[in-house]
Amino acid sequence: MKYKVLSPVMTPFNEEMTPDSSRFVRHCRWLLNQDVGLAIFGTNSEANSLSIEEKCQLLETLIEEGVEPEHIMPGTGSCAVPDAVAMTRHAVSLGCEGVLMLPPFYYKSPSNEGLYRYYAEIIESVGDTRLKIYLYHIPAVATVALNVELIERLLKAFPGTIAGIKDSGGDWGHTHHLIDTFADEGFKVFAGSEPFLLDVLRAGGAGCISATANVNPAAISQLAKQWDSPDADRAQQDLIDRRRIFERYPMIPAMKAATSHYLKDEAWSQVRPPLVELDEQERRALTALLDASGFAMSGYP
Amino acid sequence: MKYKVLSPVMTPFNEEMTPDSSRFVRHCRWLLNQDVGLAIFGTNSEANSLSIEEKCQLLETLIEEGVEPEHIMPGTGSCAVPDAVAMTRHAVSLGCEGVLMLPPFYYKSPSNEGLYRYYAEIIESVGDTRLKIYLYHIPAVATVALNVELIERLLKAFPGTIAGIKDSGGDWGHTHHLIDTFADEGFKVFAGSEPFLLDVLRAGGAGCISATANVNPAAISQLAKQWDSPDADRAQQDLIDRRRIFERYPMIPAMKAATSHYLKDEAWSQVRPPLVELDEQERRALTALLDASGFAMSGYP
Repeated sequence: MKYKVLSPVMTPFNEEMTPDSSRFVRHCRWLLNQDVGLAIFGTNSEANSLSIEEKCQLLETLIEEGVEPEHIMPGTGSCAVPDAVAMTRHAVSLGCEGVLMLPPFYYKSPSNEGLYRYYAEIIESVGDTRLKIYLYHIPAVATVALNVELIERLLKAFPGTIAGIKDSGGDWGHTHHLIDTFADEGFKVFAGSEPFLLDVLRAGGAGCISATANVNPAAISQLAKQWDSPDADRAQQDLIDRRRIFERYPMIPAMKAATSHYLKDEAWSQVRPPLVELDEQERRALTALLDASGFAMSGYP
Repeated sequence: MKYKVLSPVMTPFNEEMTPDSSRFVRHCRWLLNQDVGLAIFGTNSEANSLSIEEKCQLLETLIEEGVEPEHIMPGTGSCAVPDAVAMTRHAVSLGCEGVLMLPPFYYKSPSNEGLYRYYAEIIESVGDTRLKIYLYHIPAVATVALNVELIERLLKAFPGTIAGIKDSGGDWGHTHHLIDTFADEGFKVFAGSEPFLLDVLRAGGAGCISATANVNPAAISQLAKQWDSPDADRAQQDLIDRRRIFERYPMIPAMKAATSHYLKDEAWSQVRPPLVELDEQERRALTALLDASGFAMSGYP
C-alpha cells in the first residue's frame, strides 16, 4: 500500500437509504486527487450497517468507474467467518491492494487461540497469495483487542499475508511499541487518526488511516509528505485543531453534515440507524466553527 | 408464544464446519419433546458466527422436516438493517411465531432515537401484521442496552408488533420492573436464564429463554409447569446447581462438549471462531461433575 494516509470513506445514501454509488465514486476521486488512499468499508464508512451485497456492489462499481484497485483497502472483517471470507475473496479477486480486517466482535473476551483461528480460517479459505491483511485494532468499538502475542503468532504463520495493522487504540505508547517490535519485518503500522501522524512517521511507521481524512484530506496528506520539514510540528497542530471541531459531535454524522453543507447536497447528511444525523442547531454550530477555521472542500469533482 | 421456556438452540457443525441440519433438527425435536420452545439463532446458537444464508437454510430445513413454525422464535437482529429485514421477512413468511431481535451492536452508545429508528425501519420494511418482535436486551454481550423509555416508545408506536422482551441483563430488579411496567399490556417478559424462572413466573412474567435449556430442558420446563407447587423452591435450586456446573467453563463450548460426550458424537463439540472447544482436561472435569450430578440426555431421538 503506497499511501501514507488513507480514509475510511464515508458511505453516502440516496433518498431510499440505499448506498449511493455515484456520490461514493465522486468522493473517492476527490480523496485520490489529494493523495489519500481508499480504506472503504471502515468504521466511519458505516460498514457494519451495510449488507455484504451492498459492499460488494459498491466495490465493483468503484472499480468499473475506473478507480484502480491498487488504491483500495476495503474492510472485510465480520462476526461470521463465511461473511469475512466472501468479502475478502471478492476484494482479492478484484485486485485490491490489501484488506483491513476487524476481529469478530460479538462474543466478548475471546482467547488469542480463537482470534488466531478466525484469521487463519479466512486466510486458508481465501487461499490466494495476493491476499494482504491489515489487522484492525479498535478496542473501544469492536470491544475485542488484538495483542502483541497474537500479531507475532499470525506473522510467523502467515508472513507474506499479514501486512500491517491499523491501531485505533488511541494510545501512542502502544502504537510506538508495535512499530519498534514489527516494522523491521516490513509490517506497516498505521495510527487510527492523524493526531499521531507525525509521531508515527518519525518512529518509522507507515502513516494513518483516519476518519477526518474524509473532510480534511489535503492538509493531512501534505503533512505526510513533508513530515521532516521544519514546519511539521505546526502543521500537525493545525490538523489536531481542525479535528477537534468535528470531535465536538458524533464523528460520522458531523462529517456527513459538513460534507452536505459545503457541497450543498442534502442527501449527504443521511446516516443509517443506529446513527442519527445532526439536528439543525448542531449543524449550524459545527459549520460556524468550520467557517471560522477557513474550512472548505476545494476541488470537489 | 405458548412456551414458558425456550432454548437458544445450539448450532451443530459437520466436519467441514458448516451447519449440520440433520443434528440441528434432531436437537430441536428433543427440546420440543420436553416442552421447550425453539429460540434458534440466539447468542448461544453462535448466530452471529453464521451467515444470513446459513441461517435461512437451517430455518427452512427445520420447517421442511415437519417442525411447526409456531414453536420457533428465530433471532433476526443484526448490525445492518438490510440483514435484519431479510432475516425477519424470511421468518415471518415461513410463519414463525415471533422473532427475537438484537439491537445493532457495532456502534457504541447509540441514542434511543437511533435504536428506535432501527426497530421502526425493520418493522416498516417487513410490513407484515403477523410480525411479533421480542426485544433482546443483553448489554454484557451486545454492549447496547434497551431501556424502559425506548420500550415505551416502541410499544406506543407498534402495539401489535412489539410482543415482549428477553432480559439477559442478569439483574432481577430490572426484570421485575419490566414485568410491573409492561406485563399488563400483554408484553411478555422472559428472563435470560433459568435461575430467575420462579421469580419471573411468580411476578407475572412469561418465563425464560435460557442457554442451559439446551442440556437440561426437562427439569426447566417441569418447573415452569409446577411453579406454584410446594416443591418449586427446591426445584429452582436444583436448576441453579446444575447450571453452575456449566458456568465453570465458557458456556457454548461446555454445552457442546457435554452434548458430544453424552450422545457419543464427537462432531457436536465443534464451535466456530472466535470460540474454542474445551480441551480434554476441561471436558473430563466437566463430565465428571455432570456424572456426579446424575446428568443425562434422556430420550434423545
